[in-house]
Amino acid sequence: MATVINLDTSRRTKTKALDSLVALVDEDLKAVNRTIIDRMHSPVTLIPQLAGHIVNAGGKRLRPVLTLAAAHLCGYQGERHIKLSTCVEFIHTATLLHDDVVDESALRRGQSSANSIWGNQSSVLVGDFLFSRAFELMVEDGSLKVLQILSRASSVIAEGEVHQLLTTNDTETSEAQYLEVIQSKTAELFAAAARIGAVVADRPDVEEEALRVYGLNLGIAFQLIDDVLDYSAREHELGKTIGDDFREGKITLPVILAFRRGSDEERAFWNRTLQNLEQTDDDLGQAIDLMKKHGSVADTISRADHYGDVARDALGIFPESEIKTALLDIIDFCIDRAH
Amino acid sequence: MATVINLDTSRRTKTKALDSLVALVDEDLKAVNRTIIDRMHSPVTLIPQLAGHIVNAGGKRLRPVLTLAAAHLCGYQGERHIKLSTCVEFIHTATLLHDDVVDESALRRGQSSANSIWGNQSSVLVGDFLFSRAFELMVEDGSLKVLQILSRASSVIAEGEVHQLLTTNDTETSEAQYLEVIQSKTAELFAAAARIGAVVADRPDVEEEALRVYGLNLGIAFQLIDDVLDYSAREHELGKTIGDDFREGKITLPVILAFRRGSDEERAFWNRTLQNLEQTDDDLGQAIDLMKKHGSVADTISRADHYGDVARDALGIFPESEIKTALLDIIDFCIDRAH
Repeated sequence: MATVINLDTSRRTKTKALDSLVALVDEDLKAVNRTIIDRMHSPVTLIPQLAGHIVNAGGKRLRPVLTLAAAHLCGYQGERHIKLSTCVEFIHTATLLHDDVVDESALRRGQSSANSIWGNQSSVLVGDFLFSRAFELMVEDGSLKVLQILSRASSVIAEGEVHQLLTTNDTETSEAQYLEVIQSKTAELFAAAARIGAVVADRPDVEEEALRVYGLNLGIAFQLIDDVLDYSAREHELGKTIGDDFREGKITLPVILAFRRGSDEERAFWNRTLQNLEQTDDDLGQAIDLMKKHGSVADTISRADHYGDVARDALGIFPESEIKTALLDIIDFCIDRAH
Repeated sequence: MATVINLDTSRRTKTKALDSLVALVDEDLKAVNRTIIDRMHSPVTLIPQLAGHIVNAGGKRLRPVLTLAAAHLCGYQGERHIKLSTCVEFIHTATLLHDDVVDESALRRGQSSANSIWGNQSSVLVGDFLFSRAFELMVEDGSLKVLQILSRASSVIAEGEVHQLLTTNDTETSEAQYLEVIQSKTAELFAAAARIGAVVADRPDVEEEALRVYGLNLGIAFQLIDDVLDYSAREHELGKTIGDDFREGKITLPVILAFRRGSDEERAFWNRTLQNLEQTDDDLGQAIDLMKKHGSVADTISRADHYGDVARDALGIFPESEIKTALLDIIDFCIDRAH
């Protein structure tokens, strides 16, 4: 069982971690933002309009920041990481646009989602555009290795999304299957984003692998906490619609643990609400109560801690530096969101 | 005005043109089909299921055949064209999957469309997978030039699709705007597919450009005829649902010509049916009558003839050969579908 409370104090001091990491790559991130605006341009004006809506919707730019920070960690001095960070953000944005269509979400980061404003059709097609544009940027960069990493990541993400669709409403989904899904749909891009930092700096395989493992485990922890937040976030603070996953019947770890630890009667509740999607207004509250009863939210955070630890150790081979400290603090930042 | 009838007899003899072109690249096409099956594999079994549905749905494989035939025309002896043809077909299939979601089509080539069987969500995500997989295949091939051509084509296709969405229901769309749309959404991939044949064979720029121009103009002619067929095809023969474009309010050239040539009263009809989508059962019949009255179907075919002529002349620099003859006959095949 997780002992969340006694970690709390040390963590609270690190919730500004993203700000301090962003401050370290501030100039680069501004260049990335300029490149984003420049490269999502199209004579078909709906494209920059719609893409701009989601790109500017207060996203954390966590993935491109990972590429920038990893490049700095590896002592990279050039400019390639700017364009490649933009690729990473475009791939991420494209998947968000398609996700919102698939999930029929009305909100994204507390604002109206693009599909609810411009319709599903535009979101599908502008997603395709951003995805294609990401590959154009990579081709301009000219590294087949980067292309290999990001085209593979894109396939794996799509595979993970389809896999997730298949586990939706299936209360018998195992923890292992769930982990496969979040590793593919979320962590793979974190891994690629961090790894590219070492690739542009032309660092040895061992550093490339360290950054990949860091990104992968950070991404898993990030998604675990994201799934916790769907049952505990304060909407106005985090811009998330609470209970979205519940209403859609998404099977995430807090559900899996409560289901596996529950009585037959409780499983009947989960089957009715998530498998059959027969829900009343009180059901979300009851779901949260069952999770509390079985400690399934706290233990999901505990699982996230485990992946956070792996991510932390992965960076062990790098000498101490301000940027390394900031990358380590990001792990806590990702997990602290749940507190 | 088009004088369709007196061209008819000579053309009828060429309707087997696709068969004879396919016969010339038969071994290669079999290898492409094997590669398609091999590379759409995924442990997430819905992916090969859904992708297989559309890949096996009786498509003509026109685009990958163009790559194969262009490579032969350029005297290419290697194997790279197999994988790159597969890329072209994957990109095409991905756009079909997304198109059917955007159009809410129930039929594709006379069979149930993937989205009507597995839902829009799966179609969006499997499309993303095929698209990513196409880029993985290109990266394996390792040519940055091919990557540049196909990533550019993909962006342009997506741009064209968004542009088409914006002209939907807009009866004031001009012929030039319509041409921009079909050039982007359809002809660009034909152009890239043909051009790649010269690229793998490492032929001079002038041949690469000739094949690009051939593909581009063939693609425009192909789409013009496709748009004609929506008002004239026999459903059971061509596997097309007649009147789809009309019901969706798509503004294609037969409509544009009838609208521009029509009376105020007729324009009111087009505005009611296509702009406001207020349609009765008799309206499709009336639309076809108005097109006949103004010769707008015949003249759309005449426009297609023009682009066919440009495509034909583009191949002029290549010496006579069986494969060149077959590539020229394909132009007539694409246009003859309307007769």
